Amino acid sequence: MRPYELIKAKRDGQRLKADDIAAFIDGYTRGTVPDYQMSAMLMAVFFRGLDDGELGAWARAMLFSGEVLDLSDTPGIKVDKHSTGGVGDKVSLSLAPLAAACGVPVPMISGRGLGHTGGTLDKLESIPGFQVDLSVAEYRRLVREVKVCLIGQTATLAPADKKLYALRDVTATVDCIPLIASSIMSKKLAEGIDALVLDVKVGSGAFMKKLEDARTLARTMISIGREMGKKVTALLTDMDQPLGHAVGNALEVVEAVEMLRGRAPADYTEVTLALTAEMLVLGGRAANEAEARAQLQKVIADGSAEKKLCELVEAQRGDPAAITDLSRLPRAKHTAKVAAPAAGFVTGIDSEAVGLAAMALGAGRERTDSIINPAVGFMLEKKVGDAVQAGEPIVTVHYDDAAKLEPVKQRLLAAYRFGPAKPAPRPLVLERLE
Amino acid sequence: MRPYELIKAKRDGQRLKADDIAAFIDGYTRGTVPDYQMSAMLMAVFFRGLDDGELGAWARAMLFSGEVLDLSDTPGIKVDKHSTGGVGDKVSLSLAPLAAACGVPVPMISGRGLGHTGGTLDKLESIPGFQVDLSVAEYRRLVREVKVCLIGQTATLAPADKKLYALRDVTATVDCIPLIASSIMSKKLAEGIDALVLDVKVGSGAFMKKLEDARTLARTMISIGREMGKKVTALLTDMDQPLGHAVGNALEVVEAVEMLRGRAPADYTEVTLALTAEMLVLGGRAANEAEARAQLQKVIADGSAEKKLCELVEAQRGDPAAITDLSRLPRAKHTAKVAAPAAGFVTGIDSEAVGLAAMALGAGRERTDSIINPAVGFMLEKKVGDAVQAGEPIVTVHYDDAAKLEPVKQRLLAAYRFGPAKPAPRPLVLERLE
Repeated sequence: MRPYELIKAKRDGQRLKADDIAAFIDGYTRGTVPDYQMSAMLMAVFFRGLDDGELGAWARAMLFSGEVLDLSDTPGIKVDKHSTGGVGDKVSLSLAPLAAACGVPVPMISGRGLGHTGGTLDKLESIPGFQVDLSVAEYRRLVREVKVCLIGQTATLAPADKKLYALRDVTATVDCIPLIASSIMSKKLAEGIDALVLDVKVGSGAFMKKLEDARTLARTMISIGREMGKKVTALLTDMDQPLGHAVGNALEVVEAVEMLRGRAPADYTEVTLALTAEMLVLGGRAANEAEARAQLQKVIADGSAEKKLCELVEAQRGDPAAITDLSRLPRAKHTAKVAAPAAGFVTGIDSEAVGLAAMALGAGRERTDSIINPAVGFMLEKKVGDAVQAGEPIVTVHYDDAAKLEPVKQRLLAAYRFGPAKPAPRPLVLERLE
Repeated sequence: MRPYELIKAKRDGQRLKADDIAAFIDGYTRGTVPDYQMSAMLMAVFFRGLDDGELGAWARAMLFSGEVLDLSDTPGIKVDKHSTGGVGDKVSLSLAPLAAACGVPVPMISGRGLGHTGGTLDKLESIPGFQVDLSVAEYRRLVREVKVCLIGQTATLAPADKKLYALRDVTATVDCIPLIASSIMSKKLAEGIDALVLDVKVGSGAFMKKLEDARTLARTMISIGREMGKKVTALLTDMDQPLGHAVGNALEVVEAVEMLRGRAPADYTEVTLALTAEMLVLGGRAANEAEARAQLQKVIADGSAEKKLCELVEAQRGDPAAITDLSRLPRAKHTAKVAAPAAGFVTGIDSEAVGLAAMALGAGRERTDSIINPAVGFMLEKKVGDAVQAGEPIVTVHYDDAAKLEPVKQRLLAAYRFGPAKPAPRPLVLERLE
């Protein structure tokens, strides 16, 4: 079928054949299908969706648009985790060394911050010297030797996705579940993994605001994984308030290291342990969740998880002394407190507003060419359910530029909601799907 | 609003503001809005539609993307007719001189054949010497002096439509009523008309196969006209079988001239008179349809309609002797009869199949660069409702290339349906809308 006929068929709600989808995406990657035909197709997919078979074919075509790594020179079941993105989501920073310390090889290709959400690569780069732009050969070697490596997207993996994402970004076809799912899965499956744990965030700070949408996205990604013969499980986790206390790159690294020492906030610790336990079970290192959690407690208690992070940092040319002595990480020049306006309970924190405030402070990018300040950010001293007195600090702002302080304080105050009664606690892990 | 936001708003079913639509279409015409954003917008419009206000703004932006002719140097209410296209539709050839002979100035910019439907320009060009590519200045002069002029689309009128149509053609967004309506109306309103009669064809040979779609298209075009302060009426006319007997360029000119002499088939005559009567009423030359029809009978009977056609042909550098002596028009080398396979009644003629057969014979274009043979075509000797004997001729094929005869005869036989009973007659004018 010609591209025109495929667009028309999708527009009219017909099912596309796998071969036709492959030819269309291949043509787009090579430039024989022009942007304007792809954008019409994307909008038709927005309205008509893709069924499981079409979705598998679409993701497979994206995956095989470039190199698909074969990491079979590393023994064991290689497992990665993907998060749909949140505020204060530093899970990968502790999860990757935890899983590797338990013997699960973790090949992880991560992203930069996007909009109000932070990016794992940006956080890692706050560690002096840390390199995320390694060659595929080096990545392969580190997965084999260190059992863990965290790098950025390369040009050779899933090039169709890179091209397609840029087009979706300017044609209002980003927020479309089949396209989101195939984008994520094609990139992840190109890494050379055997299994994948998905952390699908739900709530005000997540891309998926509603539980039902998050569930659909998770099911869609699991379906693609199944079509590709990969084991995929998903946890839907709460992102109605930021995760942990730290928001900002170096501040989040500190909190992640504290987690590996068993001293991090309970919500961040619990979400990380739940996701890492999934990885251990998928990776064949534990028979069930309880066994996995016991192993995780052991590598935290005996220091081998932190040691694994130091190994990872050193292997990627970072300074491991900045992990053992966290004061060596970048630090903002000033701190200031945001005070509670009245006594009561914190009843809500708008994560997206907190993320945008962090971006305004310099912790994220307003434009793709913005330069991040690794030192700045927030420590949320009070979270949902905490009692506060009038004037008591709710947030500590770490800042360099005094001119930015007041507007950011105003944004933070506006992001907090207070009330007279303690709200019922929300579960951290809302659902598990497989 | 930026183009991205407009696409997203339309995608999400929001109403676009007139200024935003104007800026989007203006940007597209000037090249600052790229094809891939427009094609995403077109597909979103396909699914979400445009309401009356949006539609008016869209058509207005297309109209003012180029020159809008002001024909106020010609006195009187200038009226044109537009047909959505059919098979054997030679209405313009007789309607234009009829209306002009009754004193209504007719500025008519026509099109070429498209797919299975013929084009008025192609038909006119079968008259030796006839020029359709006149300058705007000459067009203006002929409307003033001859009261009628039929030319092709110029580059200066509605350039947005030309660019947009080419994009729609490759992105499966042609068959979308708001886009069809705004395309037609922007071109027609650029001609300098005061009023417009629409001939919306319905049936197997028309772009609108269903009455309801035809009605929606007619209403949509009337609504655009109203937004622009123009008086527009529409007749929905039957295209379930070809109109008249002649299909093919020179053959249709012959039939049109015969109509001006009062000797054409009843269906073609009736549709032409009904549409031209609308023009006379809109043009203020008749108080009602009956008065208009009386005038039309008069200009047929006294020869002034045919005389007007001769004037038009001469003014556009054609040979008027080919009108007064029709044997001077191009004639095919051979004729052959298609015989009825059995006795009975003609119960149906698939107009689209007849149109495609004519195209295969050389009367239409298979590709945009195909060269038309003006002489070839068909005379449909039997039409729906006619009784036939076995072996009696149903079609006379006028052909030059003997190799094409047999396949075309087969197509024609397949296009005719026969049955034992005379079918109930269908009305020629199904509805009138204003």
